[in-house]
Amino acid sequence: MTAQQLDARRARGARTRVTVLDRAVELAASDGLEGLTLSRLAAALHVSKSGLFAHWASKEQLQLAAIEHARSQWATRVVAPALARPRGLPRLWGLHEERLAMYAADAVPGCFFVTVEAELAGRPGPLRSRVAEVLTEWLEVVEGAVARSVELGHLPAGLDPALLAYEVEAAGVAAAYQSRLLDPDVVAARSRRVVLDRLRSLATDASLLPDS
Amino acid sequence: MTAQQLDARRARGARTRVTVLDRAVELAASDGLEGLTLSRLAAALHVSKSGLFAHWASKEQLQLAAIEHARSQWATRVVAPALARPRGLPRLWGLHEERLAMYAADAVPGCFFVTVEAELAGRPGPLRSRVAEVLTEWLEVVEGAVARSVELGHLPAGLDPALLAYEVEAAGVAAAYQSRLLDPDVVAARSRRVVLDRLRSLATDASLLPDS
Repeated sequence: MTAQQLDARRARGARTRVTVLDRAVELAASDGLEGLTLSRLAAALHVSKSGLFAHWASKEQLQLAAIEHARSQWATRVVAPALARPRGLPRLWGLHEERLAMYAADAVPGCFFVTVEAELAGRPGPLRSRVAEVLTEWLEVVEGAVARSVELGHLPAGLDPALLAYEVEAAGVAAAYQSRLLDPDVVAARSRRVVLDRLRSLATDASLLPDS
Repeated sequence: MTAQQLDARRARGARTRVTVLDRAVELAASDGLEGLTLSRLAAALHVSKSGLFAHWASKEQLQLAAIEHARSQWATRVVAPALARPRGLPRLWGLHEERLAMYAADAVPGCFFVTVEAELAGRPGPLRSRVAEVLTEWLEVVEGAVARSVELGHLPAGLDPALLAYEVEAAGVAAAYQSRLLDPDVVAARSRRVVLDRLRSLATDASLLPDS
């Protein structure tokens, strides 16, 4: 095998891995991590269980890989497009708007993390620890965007970044959560409206934000 | 058996039913409705499965009974004490404060409904329909308290009850959700602070609310 052939094979392998993990995250978002077994994933993908076993030797390894993959989807689909916006308030708003766009695009309303964080209540272990780290990391991203907005004078000095980040995150979690039971369009419109109104009411310059 | 003996037996039966359903709600809050089987409930209560079978002939009947029981706990522990407060803004604030008090008192942080609503994503059927009705009913209680606060002049006219109710509910859901992974005391303090600050900022008379 030439180096070129080897590279092509590696690229195919990486693409396959992404496809498999996309499906694993979808399954867990709907049925929870407990329902994410090598057998069920193999059945969903129409492949043999032994093929998957070569990648993840245990259910826990597969579950941890799904958490990392969901984290990386969030980074790609929510954080990265928000970071492409101007610093400060537009970026803070972007974190919420991109999150709602991700929810709207997904077949299963809501997200992996809402299912999994609810599921891991009272179950200490490596899965819960990792999910707690991912949540902390996300809250720090939102708090950082609030702090930067204050530094840039987009939001008033003296505002507590942890509290405003809590409000923005809460409006997002509630959207994921209510979309599963109520009309997702109504829920998304409310979630968008409350965060936009809240940020506009605090902003030193409302023109940094969309009107609606 | 005398009528008195029969009454006493019925009262014992009702107490037993409450004890059993309390445990069922606890189990489901931690492991989900899917994990709530007659076998596991019997094991948790150290009773025979056949004894429970006399009350609930199927897993789905038991799951529906657990939903009704959780709804009635919420009515007793959150809604009733809030309704005992003065109408308008004190009552609206009471709905959030009593909810946080319930979360703080429970062994498993968070609540039955957060686990179950996450679990029922994409699973239409009688369980999801009933949980959706309970959520709608709760949102109507919060919206009603906002609307009454506006009527009484505690909150400004023109405020949209559905939006403020969404914010209050979101701060509550996020508390249930984050408490499972992060420090519950820090989470509860933030959830209390953001709703109190928000209501105080909107209130026409801040003395209707506590300072902190």
